[in-house]
Amino acid sequence: MPKTPALDDRSLLAPLLASGWTLDADRDAITRVFTFGNFVDAFGFMTRAALWAEKWGHHPEWSNVYKTVAVTLTTHDAGGLTELDVKLATKMDALATP
Amino acid sequence: MPKTPALDDRSLLAPLLASGWTLDADRDAITRVFTFGNFVDAFGFMTRAALWAEKWGHHPEWSNVYKTVAVTLTTHDAGGLTELDVKLATKMDALATP
Repeated sequence: MPKTPALDDRSLLAPLLASGWTLDADRDAITRVFTFGNFVDAFGFMTRAALWAEKWGHHPEWSNVYKTVAVTLTTHDAGGLTELDVKLATKMDALATP
Repeated sequence: MPKTPALDDRSLLAPLLASGWTLDADRDAITRVFTFGNFVDAFGFMTRAALWAEKWGHHPEWSNVYKTVAVTLTTHDAGGLTELDVKLATKMDALATP
């Protein structure tokens, strides 16, 4: 499988940074904490996101404590952000919207 | 709902410590890292564990990176380990066994 190209067009991050994602420059990753009403909603979000992640072959680093889900996205084989991260982050934002 | 009683009988932890759980004495919590063959197996495990957690009203702190799932169990309202943690850890061990 070809290596995923790095995210050269950084303007693609702007909508994500506006929606609540934060850039971790050290790792060239983006992070966001999603807060839901309860565990069912939080894990339901994870389940839906997991299906997209698996479908796209691109998986998050994430943690869950009751109603919160903290997500970090980066592309390990590219050593930083790629368009796959933008795609998955955008999908997660949509999935988290009631 | 009555507060969950603390885990007075510490011998109940022995089988868990033998199966791969570690005691975090500072937090009075137990932790274990589960490693699976791939993301589907790792998230499948989380999904099954999530259903038991919700059923029992007792939820893990956990994180997932591709095929690994790191779990921490403690009972927040008791300020440490209770029998609920032993019950959920034992269930997780069973769910993780092929």
